[in-house]
Amino acid sequence: MVPPDLKEKNEIGMSPYQLHFRGEKRTDRVHLRLIDYGPETLQERELDSVDDVLALKDSPTVSWLNVDGVHDAKTMEAIARGLGFETLILADAMNTRSRPKIAEYANCLFVSIKMLREEDASEELKVEHLSLVVTEHMLISFQEEMGDVFNPVRERIRAQKKRIRGSGPDYLMFALLDIVVDNYIYIIGKLGDKIEDLEDGLLEDPSKTVIEEINAYKRELNNLRKNILPAREVILNLSKLDSEFIDEEKNAVHFRELVDNINQAAEATSNYREILSDQLTIYHTTISSKLNDIMKFLTVFSVIFIPLTFIAGIYGTNFDVLPELHFRYSYYVMWGIMISVAVGMLVYFKRNKWL
Amino acid sequence: MVPPDLKEKNEIGMSPYQLHFRGEKRTDRVHLRLIDYGPETLQERELDSVDDVLALKDSPTVSWLNVDGVHDAKTMEAIARGLGFETLILADAMNTRSRPKIAEYANCLFVSIKMLREEDASEELKVEHLSLVVTEHMLISFQEEMGDVFNPVRERIRAQKKRIRGSGPDYLMFALLDIVVDNYIYIIGKLGDKIEDLEDGLLEDPSKTVIEEINAYKRELNNLRKNILPAREVILNLSKLDSEFIDEEKNAVHFRELVDNINQAAEATSNYREILSDQLTIYHTTISSKLNDIMKFLTVFSVIFIPLTFIAGIYGTNFDVLPELHFRYSYYVMWGIMISVAVGMLVYFKRNKWL
Amino acid sequence: MVPPDLKEKNEIGMSPYQLHFRGEKRTDRVHLRLIDYGPETLQERELDSVDDVLALKDSPTVSWLNVDGVHDAKTMEAIARGLGFETLILADAMNTRSRPKIAEYANCLFVSIKMLREEDASEELKVEHLSLVVTEHMLISFQEEMGDVFNPVRERIRAQKKRIRGSGPDYLMFALLDIVVDNYIYIIGKLGDKIEDLEDGLLEDPSKTVIEEINAYKRELNNLRKNILPAREVILNLSKLDSEFIDEEKNAVHFRELVDNINQAAEATSNYREILSDQLTIYHTTISSKLNDIMKFLTVFSVIFIPLTFIAGIYGTNFDVLPELHFRYSYYVMWGIMISVAVGMLVYFKRNKWL
Amino acid sequence: MVPPDLKEKNEIGMSPYQLHFRGEKRTDRVHLRLIDYGPETLQERELDSVDDVLALKDSPTVSWLNVDGVHDAKTMEAIARGLGFETLILADAMNTRSRPKIAEYANCLFVSIKMLREEDASEELKVEHLSLVVTEHMLISFQEEMGDVFNPVRERIRAQKKRIRGSGPDYLMFALLDIVVDNYIYIIGKLGDKIEDLEDGLLEDPSKTVIEEINAYKRELNNLRKNILPAREVILNLSKLDSEFIDEEKNAVHFRELVDNINQAAEATSNYREILSDQLTIYHTTISSKLNDIMKFLTVFSVIFIPLTFIAGIYGTNFDVLPELHFRYSYYVMWGIMISVAVGMLVYFKRNKWL
Amino acid sequence: MVPPDLKEKNEIGMSPYQLHFRGEKRTDRVHLRLIDYGPETLQERELDSVDDVLALKDSPTVSWLNVDGVHDAKTMEAIARGLGFETLILADAMNTRSRPKIAEYANCLFVSIKMLREEDASEELKVEHLSLVVTEHMLISFQEEMGDVFNPVRERIRAQKKRIRGSGPDYLMFALLDIVVDNYIYIIGKLGDKIEDLEDGLLEDPSKTVIEEINAYKRELNNLRKNILPAREVILNLSKLDSEFIDEEKNAVHFRELVDNINQAAEATSNYREILSDQLTIYHTTISSKLNDIMKFLTVFSVIFIPLTFIAGIYGTNFDVLPELHFRYSYYVMWGIMISVAVGMLVYFKRNKWL
Repeated sequence: MVPPDLKEKNEIGMSPYQLHFRGEKRTDRVHLRLIDYGPETLQERELDSVDDVLALKDSPTVSWLNVDGVHDAKTMEAIARGLGFETLILADAMNTRSRPKIAEYANCLFVSIKMLREEDASEELKVEHLSLVVTEHMLISFQEEMGDVFNPVRERIRAQKKRIRGSGPDYLMFALLDIVVDNYIYIIGKLGDKIEDLEDGLLEDPSKTVIEEINAYKRELNNLRKNILPAREVILNLSKLDSEFIDEEKNAVHFRELVDNINQAAEATSNYREILSDQLTIYHTTISSKLNDIMKFLTVFSVIFIPLTFIAGIYGTNFDVLPELHFRYSYYVMWGIMISVAVGMLVYFKRNKWL
Repeated sequence: MVPPDLKEKNEIGMSPYQLHFRGEKRTDRVHLRLIDYGPETLQERELDSVDDVLALKDSPTVSWLNVDGVHDAKTMEAIARGLGFETLILADAMNTRSRPKIAEYANCLFVSIKMLREEDASEELKVEHLSLVVTEHMLISFQEEMGDVFNPVRERIRAQKKRIRGSGPDYLMFALLDIVVDNYIYIIGKLGDKIEDLEDGLLEDPSKTVIEEINAYKRELNNLRKNILPAREVILNLSKLDSEFIDEEKNAVHFRELVDNINQAAEATSNYREILSDQLTIYHTTISSKLNDIMKFLTVFSVIFIPLTFIAGIYGTNFDVLPELHFRYSYYVMWGIMISVAVGMLVYFKRNKWL
Repeated sequence: MVPPDLKEKNEIGMSPYQLHFRGEKRTDRVHLRLIDYGPETLQERELDSVDDVLALKDSPTVSWLNVDGVHDAKTMEAIARGLGFETLILADAMNTRSRPKIAEYANCLFVSIKMLREEDASEELKVEHLSLVVTEHMLISFQEEMGDVFNPVRERIRAQKKRIRGSGPDYLMFALLDIVVDNYIYIIGKLGDKIEDLEDGLLEDPSKTVIEEINAYKRELNNLRKNILPAREVILNLSKLDSEFIDEEKNAVHFRELVDNINQAAEATSNYREILSDQLTIYHTTISSKLNDIMKFLTVFSVIFIPLTFIAGIYGTNFDVLPELHFRYSYYVMWGIMISVAVGMLVYFKRNKWL
Repeated sequence: MVPPDLKEKNEIGMSPYQLHFRGEKRTDRVHLRLIDYGPETLQERELDSVDDVLALKDSPTVSWLNVDGVHDAKTMEAIARGLGFETLILADAMNTRSRPKIAEYANCLFVSIKMLREEDASEELKVEHLSLVVTEHMLISFQEEMGDVFNPVRERIRAQKKRIRGSGPDYLMFALLDIVVDNYIYIIGKLGDKIEDLEDGLLEDPSKTVIEEINAYKRELNNLRKNILPAREVILNLSKLDSEFIDEEKNAVHFRELVDNINQAAEATSNYREILSDQLTIYHTTISSKLNDIMKFLTVFSVIFIPLTFIAGIYGTNFDVLPELHFRYSYYVMWGIMISVAVGMLVYFKRNKWL
Repeated sequence: MVPPDLKEKNEIGMSPYQLHFRGEKRTDRVHLRLIDYGPETLQERELDSVDDVLALKDSPTVSWLNVDGVHDAKTMEAIARGLGFETLILADAMNTRSRPKIAEYANCLFVSIKMLREEDASEELKVEHLSLVVTEHMLISFQEEMGDVFNPVRERIRAQKKRIRGSGPDYLMFALLDIVVDNYIYIIGKLGDKIEDLEDGLLEDPSKTVIEEINAYKRELNNLRKNILPAREVILNLSKLDSEFIDEEKNAVHFRELVDNINQAAEATSNYREILSDQLTIYHTTISSKLNDIMKFLTVFSVIFIPLTFIAGIYGTNFDVLPELHFRYSYYVMWGIMISVAVGMLVYFKRNKWL
């Protein structure tokens, strides 16, 4: 796991205005997808170049430009130039290792957040740096690669849902953020299920793999938390923001909804953290109490034989005068004594609850 | 225990305006109960359909409509349409997994909270999502199923208590919330009694079941806490709210009362948490000190026999020349030496407080 | 120890306006004591009924009515009716399980706090719910039973101290609260002395009773803390209050004094908590290092005998051909070897600091 | 160590206006030292009585009256009467167990703080309650006994340093407080040196005295902390105060300086606390890993002899038919087998890294 | 490691205005480097004396004077006199042990921070006290010795980057602080890599060196934290400052950038702290579970031999009448019994999962 917040030596002191992709090297082509919609109209297509979108810049319809791939400085520059954004905005979108943030500019609002999604086939968790730029009539979303969690929104647009088709890019932004947060909750819930399943095997059969699972889940949960807590910060700041690109009155309900959801996500993570930590304690307690039982049993076992072996040792000595050796029933008497001693000790141990 | 804050895969990205029941599947019929009262008048009846309540919408009497069952989208829609509520309000009432919240709308005030109650027969704890909608002349309460904790309020209304009969729906809301919080305190207190009873057996006889009980109570307490802390948040926000549906001056005392009570509930939970954690420590200390005592005893016991067995071993050797074997009292002398060694060691151990 | 914040099942949903005594059942008679004083005048007497005090309601002298016993709803109602208080005020005074609180009303100021005192003879700690009601010319104090900590104030009044005789009921309230807090500090200090005395015996002779004492003191301290922390809250709120019944300018110094004292009390409790927790750690460390020493000694002891017993075992075998048995000094040589082995091991263990 | 915040039984309920010395009994004479200075003038002398200072009350020169000893109520009263202070001020100065505080009065500013100093000869730590009263032209400092840390300031005054000679009593107060805080830093630093020296011996030779040293340093550090944290509170409050006795503009820099220094002191204490707690962990880890090594060695040692002794036991039996006893080389073969078993076990243990 | 916040005995009570170097003694010459630039002009040279810079004081170009070495009071005084700074400013620059701080003066803004850098050859970490003084046309940077992290900024100036060449000293200050913070992130990242590499060896082969490495990294991380947390405080204060020497509007973006970066640095340190603490727990768990396995094996091993040795002991006794000794196959039967006992015990232990 490469730590996500490292700085390469050659990146130190770089001007914040320089468009420089910070992340793993990529070479795949950048995809541009456009959905342009109004209450009555809808067009959806793949773009070959950024120029195609410029015409829509001032049209009253909502244009959602989705950019899959932020590693190509040239495309990014074309977008910045074409739409009149400051380079700093796109520099933030390209720095996929940066923390979620929110920033207001003269002609747009910038929001970045980490998008978590489960790859359909492999159920592997993908973390992507998602940046949204909202202008008066447009929303541009930047993702690191193809594949996202936004299909329900696309479906809602296609299904001509009145609310989304009749609202501006601010509503679209809420819809997208809402899905991102919904996915947080879904992913935490799935991890939480696995964590709660652990509990059953914990008391009965605390094998060594359990502790490794607990540690793995803990790390996974920390990983989620590192993404969710800054997201909460961003969303809380968003709800306090007084921006011209968001119609606050119309969206008050969505703000509240979003804050509620992200809070629920954050609470769930800390709940599962506590559960994991309790499980760890239970594991250690069970293991050590089991070991104690074994050691106690073995110690008691060997202690019982100690006086018996001693007695046998006595009658193994070669003294000329050792009267007991010569009585007729001595040997049987010795056995009798031995058995009484052993039984006596067992009774004593039982009574003291040592067994 | 199904985690209460999970999201199903198909719920991701659903519009917040869609009426969708989130909770365990249900099919039972929705019950509508109406109590309509004023200083002089009182009527109480079961309704067959929502239409019956519409007539009372603007009548000056207080109408309390209680809805048992929120899983039926059709009934909910009928209520929303009939009373002119935004669908979002009822969507929140139907999402029984959502966090307690408070929201103000143009024509009503929405409060949701978790209602805890003990089923009379089984003493089982039930957690229900309770939503209250307060308008100028009405209070509508939504519960997940039949059975609630509100009978004392119903009795007070029937008994023609001047204060409740002469006040508006805001007073009714306080009365209901107060009972919910009273039940929190009662339930915590009962759990607390069980926790404090644990203490007695803890030092004398720390059996294994104790630790399981402690863990069970801990989980139960955490469960309560997860419901009570957000409730406190809601009640504190309610007391700061400046809403047209609440006569603040008249209700100042009830606000204070409610805040005091919910604080008492929250304090009690953390008190019992600390007690449980102390008990856990005491348990472990007792267990381990008991084990230490056993191991010490056994070790001392076996150490005493070691030199004795060694002496017997010496005189079990078959050397041709081993003078002691041939003296007359050798055997008895050996016994004498053995006993002295054992007694000497016992005394030494006693003196050093090893026994 | 009955938990102080429980709710009985039949108390749930009771109207907050109902006068209902919450605490242990009592039947003793309620005592009313009146001290009426001005700069020049002083009268002190036991009252038979509340009516006697009504005449003094508007007299410019300060009337201090002390009520010992709040379990009798009739007397309380008589007071409420006679002096024109809201019933809620006296309901709070009667609910001896409620948290300390402060509340302002149209014609009076209500303050409740827990009074801790040591019974003179038995040195037993008593916790009482104390309520003070301050009006323009009166102060009414409600206690659960006879016996309190206010004698120094009574003495100051009798001794004609100018300051107290010349001030209003607000100064009297400060004087009473000050004594309550002084008693907190005194009681914590006494407990603290006992805690610090523990320390001496801790390193030398950590007997089992020590741990029980530590646990007992811990519980006692938590008990104090549960009373003192809410008291601090109340006093801090009092100092921020803008009430017509308190002359803030004149009493600024007393506010500060009181806040300082209650802070000192709170700090002392957390100090002693830390000391106790350190002592617990020291106890466990000492105990376990002592056990380790014993186990190490015993293990080393038995390990030394193991090779010796083995050697004796060798020469106890009955082989036909075992040359060493037949040499003249074999037996003595065996002893020599045994002693060398034992001494060698002892030296080795000493060198490695295992002994 | 007498706990510093105790209240004697007879001090409960005492009027805050009564001059009553709270601390250890003292009988030594009170010393009054006066330094009176202006830009051009300087006189320094011991006073016999307070009256000598009254003449200087309104003179424009700065008069610094230092009072060594606050146990004598008569002298204190004379000062209060002579300079027109409220008795409460001097009551605070006499209560040497009270917390550091700051209070503003009509004709003066009162600041109290704990002065820590190292006695020159014995290097023993002395804690004194220092009170400063600042009026327009005077500063009166109250100490518990002779000997203080203020000589550098006296030197600066004598050396005619322009800044101090040209400023008022507020600057003098800063200079004194600054020295008090400088001494905090110096004393913490010295203790910190001792703590860091501990570290070296910790891994190599964790003797028992180390743990006692750690505990002693911990207590010492807590003691410092108990004095420094309230001092920080006082200094922060001082910097927010808007008093007529402090020229805020001129002294802004000193405020900042002082706050910086006290923060540094507070940070240093928590740093050393963490270091101590880490050392404790390291100590326990080292001790227990050392014990584990010993126990492992001893166990392995005795386990190796167990099968050997068993083999010898076999051939010590007295069966009529035991063929091996009668072969010529049996005895040597037995030795061979024993040695092979021992070597085999050693190899096995080594391979598994058990040794 | 000399603790950085100590005070020497002779420094106590020193006037804050005295120029006194606090740090390790130094004798090397102070270096003065000047870069003077405007949009069109650039000159770069070593200065022999401070006088050379005075001419540039009011020229509209930006003059960056870098001072390597702050131990020479004479040079510092010359700078203070020449540029009209208060001596206190340079006293802070010379006190290399002081905390990072920010202070505003009439003619300049003072910022100090700790500069961390890795020496190129040795990869050793260097901590230097960096002070920046910003005036209208100048920035003076004070470092403890030659060598810094500012080369990227120098390169940007030389490369005629429009933004830096066209901005004032405030932009230069941001560029310098940004590099300092970039270096924090880089250094934490490098340490973090080493910490994460530890993890692999932790579960498989927890040698003793691992724990020493963990402790070393912990100390290193604490050391970083002690420098970074106060730096964050300074930068947050800087972003709230309303100073005439900073053009807030132009630099808003840089403020945000800087705050984001320092927050990232702080978050990374706490992340790695948690990882280290988890690793410590894993280490201890692994070690102790390994030890438990060994002890369990050894105990089981010896317990199996105990009854066998006892049986051999029985037949080693010398009773006259011991019938079993005289049967023909007794010896073999004894072996059979022994083997059955051993196998039986092994099976029993296996079944109970004790092996």
